[in-house]
Amino acid sequence: MSCLMPGEDFTLVVVFPLWPTFHLVGPLSAIDLSSSLSDGSKVRVAYQGLPGAYSEAAALKAYPKCETVPCDEFEAVFKAVELWLVDKAVLPIENSVGGSIHRNYDLLLFHRLHIVGEVQLVVNHCLLGLPGVRKEELKRVLSHPQALDQCEMTLNKLGVTKVSTNDSAGAAQITAAERVRDTGAIASVRAAEIYGLDVLAERIQDDTDNITRFLILAREPIIPGSDRPHKTSIVFSLEEGPGVLFKALAVFALRNINLSKIESRPQRYRPLRIVDDSNKGSAKYFDYLFYVDFEASMAEPRAQYALAHLQEIAKFLRVLGCYPIDTTL
Amino acid sequence: MSCLMPGEDFTLVVVFPLWPTFHLVGPLSAIDLSSSLSDGSKVRVAYQGLPGAYSEAAALKAYPKCETVPCDEFEAVFKAVELWLVDKAVLPIENSVGGSIHRNYDLLLFHRLHIVGEVQLVVNHCLLGLPGVRKEELKRVLSHPQALDQCEMTLNKLGVTKVSTNDSAGAAQITAAERVRDTGAIASVRAAEIYGLDVLAERIQDDTDNITRFLILAREPIIPGSDRPHKTSIVFSLEEGPGVLFKALAVFALRNINLSKIESRPQRYRPLRIVDDSNKGSAKYFDYLFYVDFEASMAEPRAQYALAHLQEIAKFLRVLGCYPIDTTL
Repeated sequence: MSCLMPGEDFTLVVVFPLWPTFHLVGPLSAIDLSSSLSDGSKVRVAYQGLPGAYSEAAALKAYPKCETVPCDEFEAVFKAVELWLVDKAVLPIENSVGGSIHRNYDLLLFHRLHIVGEVQLVVNHCLLGLPGVRKEELKRVLSHPQALDQCEMTLNKLGVTKVSTNDSAGAAQITAAERVRDTGAIASVRAAEIYGLDVLAERIQDDTDNITRFLILAREPIIPGSDRPHKTSIVFSLEEGPGVLFKALAVFALRNINLSKIESRPQRYRPLRIVDDSNKGSAKYFDYLFYVDFEASMAEPRAQYALAHLQEIAKFLRVLGCYPIDTTL
Repeated sequence: MSCLMPGEDFTLVVVFPLWPTFHLVGPLSAIDLSSSLSDGSKVRVAYQGLPGAYSEAAALKAYPKCETVPCDEFEAVFKAVELWLVDKAVLPIENSVGGSIHRNYDLLLFHRLHIVGEVQLVVNHCLLGLPGVRKEELKRVLSHPQALDQCEMTLNKLGVTKVSTNDSAGAAQITAAERVRDTGAIASVRAAEIYGLDVLAERIQDDTDNITRFLILAREPIIPGSDRPHKTSIVFSLEEGPGVLFKALAVFALRNINLSKIESRPQRYRPLRIVDDSNKGSAKYFDYLFYVDFEASMAEPRAQYALAHLQEIAKFLRVLGCYPIDTTL
């Protein structure tokens, strides 16, 4: 059974994006980093959070002149693209400290959008306060718990109380609204500008190389070019058994295709399987999904051959998108 | 260079745990799921959070009669074991919805504790309120943002405001202390008991199969038995290049050893490497760490051979521990 999520087919089917042979309505270009549509209107990019959120910064890195559209939930971000309310969506998918965001991979599988780009963003956590406040005056600092965690050493040195909020930009908004001099927030430089706060300190995170990777999603895939390095993101599942993953990875190794990400994950919506081993007693196993990013463009025959080969082995296979590698940080 | 973290050696060294050939001071047993030490005193298990936290429930699943010791931070949990203040620590390492917790993998690499067990725990998010309150009366619900996210559908149906706190048990504590009838919390059944709250609804998470995997850590490794299925957790890094991971996984496939987890992760404390490809322009690469759990005991020759083989390929290799698989849920 290849069913993964409600709405998936039950048959052993490879869900390739439609590499279009005719021009569809809507944006469709080789690189798709334009900041305006063919009709001259601005690209509208949905993100989860409030203005000043890191996701908004990622949208602006990909499309410097875009119009950013805040959404309250990730589900709403996907819906906004599907309902043609916006052109693109930006979705955080992994962080160098926090790891992969499985919930957002689930949304990728559940919805039918295509990855058309990636953005690597160095997270710059700033300590913000009301204008004129010195950081020594702060007694409370507000932010998302992950941001508070990531700035633990700085906050401990200041001896402030940490207060959790839903997101970092929201913390800046509350700090500005409350107007209490002893309250600060951890958020972006842009959040400081938007909510009229001072930046009391920059890069206060414990790990200097705190990087978040975002995906750019669209209704249609891009036609991958061969002018710059591309990567392709896929998800697949395998029959359980020693060596099966080894065989699956052989399809890339045999064609000299490098992997830039591999991650196994117990499948949701599947019961645990009980395996009996007369020597060792019985054990319960999960079946696994594999997320793989490989460094080749779907325009290259070796990538097409590799996926055809993988299809022989995989119970389920889906190409999430093929897009230019973000080589800037 | 094999250096990963401050304190690691710079030489190409395999850091195997000391599979002890003599009896060390302290607890050391084949299965190590006893709830009392040889001197008759109770096992003390450190966890991060307040009483009623899910980590405490994991500690009690592993050692039903243990004395649980709350710590304010994960760093303090490790320190508590290292300083002999407690015997064991429990550490959440991955969640079926949220993914791997890289920060806790970092702590595993930075410290020198050994994994001696694992606990799989089905997360049962409960809606808690003051005694006698009906859930329809609630206007605000407090919890950790991840718990609020995981119960989004239930909370939206109730039409309540979501308020973030540092942890779920803390949310229960605040709810009990504030004594406001329209405020509830999402936390465990045990948190309800501890803070004198009513359970208004159980299993309110959107995903019914929300499972967190915890590791049990100790100062000394256990001597793995062959009476029940064991797994071994390792971390390694590889020279960059197509097919290198394939070769690394061959050491397990060739010996019919199944993998239950594989995850790649960009290495911290290493600069980006720029690779020039005359056809495609230049690209920046991360080097990767790989986390692998394989289903074999270090007591089995095939596991020992596989690691010796892996050592030929890996730049860095460390065995985090070998321990019985948790087959109960």
